[in-house]
Amino acid sequence: MNRSFLQKLLSNLKRGKISEERALSALEHFSYESLGFATIDHHRQLRQGFPEVILCEGKRPQQIAAIAKQIVGRRSILLATRATRKDFIAVRKVVKNAHFHAVARIITANEPAQRATNKKRILIITAGTSDIPVAEEAVLTARMMGQNVETLFDVGVAGIHRLLIQSKKLHEADVIVVVAGMDGALASVVGGLVRCPVIAVPTSTGYGASFGGIAPLLTMLNSCAAGVTVVNIDNGFGAAFAASLIAGV
Amino acid sequence: MNRSFLQKLLSNLKRGKISEERALSALEHFSYESLGFATIDHHRQLRQGFPEVILCEGKRPQQIAAIAKQIVGRRSILLATRATRKDFIAVRKVVKNAHFHAVARIITANEPAQRATNKKRILIITAGTSDIPVAEEAVLTARMMGQNVETLFDVGVAGIHRLLIQSKKLHEADVIVVVAGMDGALASVVGGLVRCPVIAVPTSTGYGASFGGIAPLLTMLNSCAAGVTVVNIDNGFGAAFAASLIAGV
Amino acid sequence: MNRSFLQKLLSNLKRGKISEERALSALEHFSYESLGFATIDHHRQLRQGFPEVILCEGKRPQQIAAIAKQIVGRRSILLATRATRKDFIAVRKVVKNAHFHAVARIITANEPAQRATNKKRILIITAGTSDIPVAEEAVLTARMMGQNVETLFDVGVAGIHRLLIQSKKLHEADVIVVVAGMDGALASVVGGLVRCPVIAVPTSTGYGASFGGIAPLLTMLNSCAAGVTVVNIDNGFGAAFAASLIAGV
Amino acid sequence: MNRSFLQKLLSNLKRGKISEERALSALEHFSYESLGFATIDHHRQLRQGFPEVILCEGKRPQQIAAIAKQIVGRRSILLATRATRKDFIAVRKVVKNAHFHAVARIITANEPAQRATNKKRILIITAGTSDIPVAEEAVLTARMMGQNVETLFDVGVAGIHRLLIQSKKLHEADVIVVVAGMDGALASVVGGLVRCPVIAVPTSTGYGASFGGIAPLLTMLNSCAAGVTVVNIDNGFGAAFAASLIAGV
Amino acid sequence: MNRSFLQKLLSNLKRGKISEERALSALEHFSYESLGFATIDHHRQLRQGFPEVILCEGKRPQQIAAIAKQIVGRRSILLATRATRKDFIAVRKVVKNAHFHAVARIITANEPAQRATNKKRILIITAGTSDIPVAEEAVLTARMMGQNVETLFDVGVAGIHRLLIQSKKLHEADVIVVVAGMDGALASVVGGLVRCPVIAVPTSTGYGASFGGIAPLLTMLNSCAAGVTVVNIDNGFGAAFAASLIAGV
Amino acid sequence: MNRSFLQKLLSNLKRGKISEERALSALEHFSYESLGFATIDHHRQLRQGFPEVILCEGKRPQQIAAIAKQIVGRRSILLATRATRKDFIAVRKVVKNAHFHAVARIITANEPAQRATNKKRILIITAGTSDIPVAEEAVLTARMMGQNVETLFDVGVAGIHRLLIQSKKLHEADVIVVVAGMDGALASVVGGLVRCPVIAVPTSTGYGASFGGIAPLLTMLNSCAAGVTVVNIDNGFGAAFAASLIAGV
Amino acid sequence: MNRSFLQKLLSNLKRGKISEERALSALEHFSYESLGFATIDHHRQLRQGFPEVILCEGKRPQQIAAIAKQIVGRRSILLATRATRKDFIAVRKVVKNAHFHAVARIITANEPAQRATNKKRILIITAGTSDIPVAEEAVLTARMMGQNVETLFDVGVAGIHRLLIQSKKLHEADVIVVVAGMDGALASVVGGLVRCPVIAVPTSTGYGASFGGIAPLLTMLNSCAAGVTVVNIDNGFGAAFAASLIAGV
Amino acid sequence: MNRSFLQKLLSNLKRGKISEERALSALEHFSYESLGFATIDHHRQLRQGFPEVILCEGKRPQQIAAIAKQIVGRRSILLATRATRKDFIAVRKVVKNAHFHAVARIITANEPAQRATNKKRILIITAGTSDIPVAEEAVLTARMMGQNVETLFDVGVAGIHRLLIQSKKLHEADVIVVVAGMDGALASVVGGLVRCPVIAVPTSTGYGASFGGIAPLLTMLNSCAAGVTVVNIDNGFGAAFAASLIAGV
Repeated sequence: MNRSFLQKLLSNLKRGKISEERALSALEHFSYESLGFATIDHHRQLRQGFPEVILCEGKRPQQIAAIAKQIVGRRSILLATRATRKDFIAVRKVVKNAHFHAVARIITANEPAQRATNKKRILIITAGTSDIPVAEEAVLTARMMGQNVETLFDVGVAGIHRLLIQSKKLHEADVIVVVAGMDGALASVVGGLVRCPVIAVPTSTGYGASFGGIAPLLTMLNSCAAGVTVVNIDNGFGAAFAASLIAGV
Repeated sequence: MNRSFLQKLLSNLKRGKISEERALSALEHFSYESLGFATIDHHRQLRQGFPEVILCEGKRPQQIAAIAKQIVGRRSILLATRATRKDFIAVRKVVKNAHFHAVARIITANEPAQRATNKKRILIITAGTSDIPVAEEAVLTARMMGQNVETLFDVGVAGIHRLLIQSKKLHEADVIVVVAGMDGALASVVGGLVRCPVIAVPTSTGYGASFGGIAPLLTMLNSCAAGVTVVNIDNGFGAAFAASLIAGV
Repeated sequence: MNRSFLQKLLSNLKRGKISEERALSALEHFSYESLGFATIDHHRQLRQGFPEVILCEGKRPQQIAAIAKQIVGRRSILLATRATRKDFIAVRKVVKNAHFHAVARIITANEPAQRATNKKRILIITAGTSDIPVAEEAVLTARMMGQNVETLFDVGVAGIHRLLIQSKKLHEADVIVVVAGMDGALASVVGGLVRCPVIAVPTSTGYGASFGGIAPLLTMLNSCAAGVTVVNIDNGFGAAFAASLIAGV
Repeated sequence: MNRSFLQKLLSNLKRGKISEERALSALEHFSYESLGFATIDHHRQLRQGFPEVILCEGKRPQQIAAIAKQIVGRRSILLATRATRKDFIAVRKVVKNAHFHAVARIITANEPAQRATNKKRILIITAGTSDIPVAEEAVLTARMMGQNVETLFDVGVAGIHRLLIQSKKLHEADVIVVVAGMDGALASVVGGLVRCPVIAVPTSTGYGASFGGIAPLLTMLNSCAAGVTVVNIDNGFGAAFAASLIAGV
Repeated sequence: MNRSFLQKLLSNLKRGKISEERALSALEHFSYESLGFATIDHHRQLRQGFPEVILCEGKRPQQIAAIAKQIVGRRSILLATRATRKDFIAVRKVVKNAHFHAVARIITANEPAQRATNKKRILIITAGTSDIPVAEEAVLTARMMGQNVETLFDVGVAGIHRLLIQSKKLHEADVIVVVAGMDGALASVVGGLVRCPVIAVPTSTGYGASFGGIAPLLTMLNSCAAGVTVVNIDNGFGAAFAASLIAGV
Repeated sequence: MNRSFLQKLLSNLKRGKISEERALSALEHFSYESLGFATIDHHRQLRQGFPEVILCEGKRPQQIAAIAKQIVGRRSILLATRATRKDFIAVRKVVKNAHFHAVARIITANEPAQRATNKKRILIITAGTSDIPVAEEAVLTARMMGQNVETLFDVGVAGIHRLLIQSKKLHEADVIVVVAGMDGALASVVGGLVRCPVIAVPTSTGYGASFGGIAPLLTMLNSCAAGVTVVNIDNGFGAAFAASLIAGV
Repeated sequence: MNRSFLQKLLSNLKRGKISEERALSALEHFSYESLGFATIDHHRQLRQGFPEVILCEGKRPQQIAAIAKQIVGRRSILLATRATRKDFIAVRKVVKNAHFHAVARIITANEPAQRATNKKRILIITAGTSDIPVAEEAVLTARMMGQNVETLFDVGVAGIHRLLIQSKKLHEADVIVVVAGMDGALASVVGGLVRCPVIAVPTSTGYGASFGGIAPLLTMLNSCAAGVTVVNIDNGFGAAFAASLIAGV
Repeated sequence: MNRSFLQKLLSNLKRGKISEERALSALEHFSYESLGFATIDHHRQLRQGFPEVILCEGKRPQQIAAIAKQIVGRRSILLATRATRKDFIAVRKVVKNAHFHAVARIITANEPAQRATNKKRILIITAGTSDIPVAEEAVLTARMMGQNVETLFDVGVAGIHRLLIQSKKLHEADVIVVVAGMDGALASVVGGLVRCPVIAVPTSTGYGASFGGIAPLLTMLNSCAAGVTVVNIDNGFGAAFAASLIAGV
C-alpha cells in the first residue's frame, strides 16, 4: 500500500525471512488486484503519491463498496467522488469509519491525521454561490492530500471590487483554483492579477447558451491572461489534485 | 429620400401642382427601386432614420457601385461596410466624393457636415489591439449617424487596472460598446462597473478553441453582469447602429 | 443601500457626529456583506441604479432566503428570478411581504410604489404562446425597475398581418423586446419596421433542430435588420434590464 | 437514353430484327456505362425523367469532360453544376455546343428547344443580392427541366414591404423557392403568406455566427409556417429539381 | 372561417343588409382574434387553405383548450399536434366531439366527412418500427387535409429488398414522405428510385452519435439523390402538410 | 429461416412434391413477413449468417414481443438488445424460454447449444468499471454468434501496467474490442501493441466535456495507431457483431 | 528491421560471434532510432507485421526524407501517405527507387515483389467519382501489405442498381471498404447485403451541411446494418490497414 | 520596468531628489503606456514576474514593432509569439538585437544571460514530429523565463515503449508539458506514470475528425489520469508560461 510496507517486504527478503517466490507474489498482488469488475491499482500510491480515487458516477453501489473495502483494507486514504447517499450507504456497510460530505458529494475514510502538512497555500475561489458544490469537492480533495486550503466564495466579476479588496489573500496564495460558470470571466481576471499558477474549473451552472459549461470552458481555454490552465467541466477533484501536485513541486 | 422630399411632394399634390397618378408613381419609386439584382429600400431613411447600408461582402464591385450611385443620387449618406479596396475603386468611378477607410473597411460619401449632432456619448472599448478594425467599423458607423464617439483601446482584463483607472470615462458614457475576442471577459467586467447599456461585440481574433469568435460570443451571451446585449461576431457596424439608436432614445 | 443612506452617513461624518473609523466600517459593510456562501454586492444599487438580483437556479432555497433577507433588510427592492415555488416558501419565511409570480417564475418584495416612473414605453412582443413565460419575466423585471410596459403576444411571422396591423403600437415604443423561439424570424421583421432599439430574446421552445434555442439565437445574431441586439436564450430578465437602462438613457 | 430509344429497341427485338443477346447487351450498356472512374446512370432519365446531372466540385476537369461527352453522345440534356471556367474549357473540347453560365456556375448543352413546357409557375425569390448566384443555379436548372420560372431578388425582411407589394406574384406561383442567408427569415414570412409549397435554400452568405449557412439552415428547418421544406446549404440545383418535380405532379 | 362565410358577408354588404362598419368589424374579428395569450389567425384558412394548427408542446392545457374552442366554434377543422393525454382531457371539456390519437399524439375534431378528396396518392414510408409515431402524425395530418394516404413501414436499407419488392407502390405515388432515424439512408435510396417529390423526415430514434436526430438530418440534407427536401427532426406534421400542398399543385 | 429449410423446399419443388406457385409463396413469405408495424427480414440469416436482431429502444413492449415470437417461431436465435425488464416481461409471455441479462440489457432465446464453435479468440477489454455494461452487451452478442470470448476489465491507461502485464492475452487474441469512455485513450494504446484488428467502442460514461461519448469517439477516430476501427457510442452489439464477422473471415 | 535480421543477431550472440554488449546495443538501436525530431519505431514491423508508415501532412519535406531514408536503409517497405509532390522530390533525393502515386498522394519504395500474397479478397467501393482519391489511398495501402484488391467505383445509392447488378463481386469479397461522402448511405446498403466485415470511410467531398465529412461520418456510425465499422474522414490508409489485418486473421 | 527601477524612484522621492508630482507621473507612465492602438502593461513584470508578451497574430507588423520598441526600451525581455518573418523584419528595424526563431515562430530580444536560473526541470514531450513547432514555442518560452528545459519528441502511444524506456527522464521532471494532436492519448498515459503536474497542449495537427484540435482537446480534458490540466489548442506559450510559474512555486 505504501512505501513502509514495501521497505519491510524488501528487508525481509534480503534477510531471508521470506522466499523470493513469496515476495514476488506479494509484490504482484500489491500492485494490481482484480475484483473481476475492477482492477485496483494499488501501485498508484507509490507512483503518484496518492492511492486510487473512486469516481462513483457510473458504478453501482456494490462495486463502489467492494473497491472501497480493498483500499481501506490496506490502510490507504479513501476518497470517492461524485457519490450519492445511496453509494455511501453501501460503502458504510463495509467501511465503518466512512464519512459522507453531502455538498461535495464525497465519501472519505482514513482521513490524514493533521490536515495541513504543507505550508504552501491553495486558494479556492468561486464566481457565484451556485459554484460552491464543485468548489467544495476541490476543498475536500486538497485537504485529503494534506494541503493548506483557503476559500473565497461568490466574488464574480459582476461586482469586481469584491475580488479586488481581497488582493492580500490573492497574493499570498501559492496556487489558485478558480471555479466559475456562466461567462467564466473570473479566471482571466484572477490570472491577470497574480503571479502564481491558476487552475480554472468551468461549471455547468447557468442556462441557455451556457450549454452545460461549454461557455465558461471556452472562456477559460482562451484566457487572455497567461498562466491559466483548465480542467474538465465541474471537475473540482481534478483541479485540486493538480493544485496539490503543484504545491508539492 | 428624406422627410423634406416627401413633404414637398404631398404639398404639391394638395395644391394641385402634380397629378395623383404622378405622386403615386413618385412615391412608389421613392420607396423601392429595382436594379434587377437589388431592390433598394429608399423608404428606410423615413422608417428607421438612416438610409440603407451596403454590406459589400458577397456582392460584386459592379453591384456595389450601382447601388451606391442610386443612394448618393438621392443625396443620402453612403455607408458601405466590409468593403475591399477593389470595391472602392468600382464605387469611386460613379461616386466621385467617396472615401475609403482601410482599417474599418468602410466606404463613405455624403458624410454629415458636423459629426456630433447628439450630446450623448458613445464609448467604444477594445480588449486588445487586434480588435481595433472591428472597433473602427463601429466608430465610423456611429459618427456617420451623427454621434459623439470616444474610444479606449487595448484595456483587456489581463491587466485590469488599465480599465479601472479610466473609470471617469466609463461613467460619463451614455452607451458603451465593448469589442473583444479570445475570452471576451471584458464585457462582463465593464457591464458590472457602469449603469448605462453595454453592447458587446465578439471578434474572431484569437486561435484554437476561440473557434472564430464562438468563445467570446458565448462568454458575452452568458455575461453575469446585467444590461449587456450582444451582436454578431465582428459586427462593429451593428453594435454602433444599435448604440446610435439607444443614444437617440 | 441607497444614495440617501450614503448622504446621511457622509453628512454625519462631516459634522463630527460619527468617527472616521466608524464611517469607514459602515461604508465597507455597506458595500459587500459576506454570508459565507455569498458575498452580497450592496454597492450595486449605487453603481448600477438597481440592487443585486438573485438568480435562484443553482442555489438552494435556504441560500436564496438568506440573501433575500439581507436585501430586504436594507429596504431594497427584491427581485429573484427563475424561482420555484419551493424557493418561494423558503423566502416567505423570512420575508413576509414577498410575492410569487408563477408564470414568470419570479419572487418580489418591496415593489416600487408607483410602477411607471418613466414616460418612455417598453413594448414586449412574443412570436407564440409558448414564449409567454419568458416574456412575463421581462414584463415583471421592467416594471420592478419603474418602467412603463406594454405587451403584444402571439404575433409571429406565420401570420404576419397580426403584427402589421399593430404598427401604431410598434412606432410608439421607445424600446422593443422581441421574444421568439423556433425560427426566431420575428426579431428581424420587427427590427426592419421600427426606428427604436430592439432587444431579441431567443427561447428554448420548439423541438428537433431548434436545439433548445440555438436556432432562434443564431437567427437573431444574424438579423438582416440593423439595430437588433441579443441576450441569452430564455433570458427575459436580461432583456428587460437592458431595455430599462436604454429607456433611462 | 430515352423512352423512344428503348421503344425502338424492344420493337426491333419483337420483330426479330436484332437477337435477344444483342438487345440484352444494349439494354445493359444503355443503363450503366463504366468509365472506370465513373459509372454513368443512363437509366436515370427513364426512372426520374431527367438524365444524370454532373456535380463538378470534387471531380477533375478531364473526368467531367469524359462524363459530359457520354451524356451528350446519347442526345441527353447536359447539366453540370458548381463548375469552374477550367471545367468548362475541358468540356468544350469534347462538347462543342456547351455553354458556360458564369454566375450560376453551370455548364449546359442540348438545352430543351422551348423553355416553358409546363404552364405551372415556379417563383424564385432571394433575400439579398449576395444570394443571387445560388438563385441563378436554381433558375437555370428549372429552365433546363422545361419549367416556367419567374424571379424576385433582394426582397428580404429588413424591408418587408418590398415583399408585400409583390403579393400578386406570390399568389400566382405554383411553387416558390426562397433563397436566403444570414437570418433566413424570409422563408417563414413567405411560407405564411402563400398556399403553395415553399422550398427554402439556406446560403453561406453572411459572416460570424452565420457559420457558413448553419444559421439560415436552422431557421428554415424550424420555420413556424407550415409547408416549408429545406435543401442543403447553397443547393440551388436541388431546390429547383424538387420544385420541377412538384410542378410536374 | 371559410370562403362561404366571407362571400355571404360581402354579399350582405353589397345588398345593404349590413352596414359597412359592421362588415369591417366582422372582417377584422374574422381575421385575428386575441385571447390575450394567443392571437388566433382565422384568416389562415383563406390564405393557406387550412385553419391554424395548434402545436401543443410548450402550451398549457387550458391555453390549448381555449384556442381549440375558438377554432371549433367557427366550424373549422381542429388539428392539435404533439398533444398529451392531459391536453386532450382539457380540450374535451370544451370540444365534446374531440378525438385523441395516442400514437400520433394528435387531437382532432370536425374531421372532414370523406377522407380522400384528392385522387393523388401520398405514400408514407418508415425505415423502422420506432419511426412509426412520427409517421402516424404525418398520416393523420394528410388525411385531415383530405389526402389519399398509403403506408409502408419498416423497410429500411439494412434489408433493402423489403423496399425493392414494393416498387409498384413506390412508382404509383405522387408524393412520398420518408421517415427515418439512425443513418437516414432510406431517403436517398427512395429518392433515387422514383420520379415524384420526396420529403424526408429525420427522427430522433437511435442513440449515441445519432445525437437526437442530427445524424439522419444531415444525411437527408446531403442526399445524393435529387428531388429530396427535408423538414425538422420528428416533424411528421410539417412533412404531411407540405406533401398535401404538393398533391394539390 | 435457414439454409436447410431452403434446401428442402427447392428439393421438393424439383421432385414435383410442391407446385411452383406454392414454392414461390413460401419463399416470399420466408423472406419478409409484415406485422404492419414491422417488416421482419427472415432472409437476413441466409444473407448475413445471423437472423434479424431486435433493437428494443424506441419500440413498445408489445411490438418487441410480436417480433420475437415470429423469430423464435422459425427456430432462429433471438437476440434483443437495449431491452428493459418491462420489454422482457412482454417477451416472456410469448417466448417461454427467453432469458434476460440485466447488466447487458439483452433478451435471448434459442441460444446456440455449444458456445465456442470458432477457435478464433475475441478479447473484450474495458478501460473502467463503468464501461462494463457495454462490454457485456458485446460479450453476449459474440457468444450468441458462436464465438470464443475472453475479457479484461478496468485496465485503462491511468495505470497502464495493468494492461502491459497482460501482453500474453493481448497477443493471443484474433480480434480485440476495446470499450472506453472519458479520454478513450486505451484504444490507441492497444492498437499500438497488437497485430490483430481492434474495434473501438466509445462509451457515454464520464461527464462534462465528455459530451455523452463524443470525446472518446473522436479520440478513437483519430487513433494514431493503425488498424483501429470504430462503432457508435455505447454500441457493444455492433462491435461484437463486426468482431464475429472478422473472426469468421 | 524484420524477423530474419533479429534471428541472425540472436544466433550470432548464442554462437559467441558478437558480444552481449553489442547485441544489446543493436537491439536497442534496432527498436527505436532517434532523429531528434522523430523517434522511429523499427520494432513496429515485428509487433504489427508492417513497418512504420509516414503521415506526411504536418511534417516538413526534409523530415520526411530523413525518416524515409532510415526505413529504406533497413530494407523495409516505405509507405508515406498524404504526400505532396514537394515531399516526393525531397524523398527521391535520398531514396532513389521511390515512386509517387499522385491521385493517392502516396510515396512508396521497396514495394513487395508479388502483390497478392493473400488469397482473401478486399473489395474497395466508392459512392462517387470524387471519392476516388481516398479509395486509391486504400487500394495502394492494401497492395503494399500484400493483399488482393478489387474495386468498384461510382456506384452510389442515387442509382442503386449500379450496385445491385454487382452482387457477385460483393459476395465474393472477404472484406469490403466503402468510401463515400455526402449522405454516406452506401455503407448501410452494402452492409445490409453482405456477410463479410465492412469498413466505412467517410470523405470530405460534398458541400454545405456535409461539414467536411461530418454528415457521412455520422451516417456510417449510425448504420442500421450490423457489421459496419468506421474510420476517420478521408482515412483510406486506415481502412485498408484494418482490412488487411482482417484479411490476415 | 522592474523592481530596481521602482526602488530607485521611491528612494529618490524619499530623499527629496524628485518631487511628488514627478514621481506620480513616472509611476503612472511606468505602469501603462498608451500607443493609441495599444495600452502597454509595464506593470505586469512587477505583478507577474515577466513583462507583457506580444501575441503577433492579428496585429500589423508596424504595431508589433512599436510595442516591441517600448518593451525593449525599458530593458525588459522581449517575447513575441506566433510571429511571421514579415513581423520580424518590421521589429528588427527598431530592435537591432532581435532574433527570429522560425520553427517556434517567436521573436526575442534581451534574452536572459544564463538560461537555467531554476534547478527545477521542465520536460516537454511530443507525440509526433508534426507537434514540434508547438513544442518549440514552449521550449523557447520556458527558457526565456529562466527555466531548465529538456525534450523528448515523437514518443506517441502508437509505439508506447518509446515512452516507457524513458521513465528515468519522466520521473526526474518537476513539471511535464505534453504536446499532442490526433488522439491526444499521450497526456493520459504520461499523467498516469508520474507524480508531478502535467500540462497538456492539444495541437491542430491531424485531419478529418480531429477538427483542428478539438479531438485531442476533449481527450485531454477527459483524461482518466488525475493531475492533468489543459491549455488552448496549439498554445505552447501558455503551457510553458504556466509550467514556469509552477516550477517557481
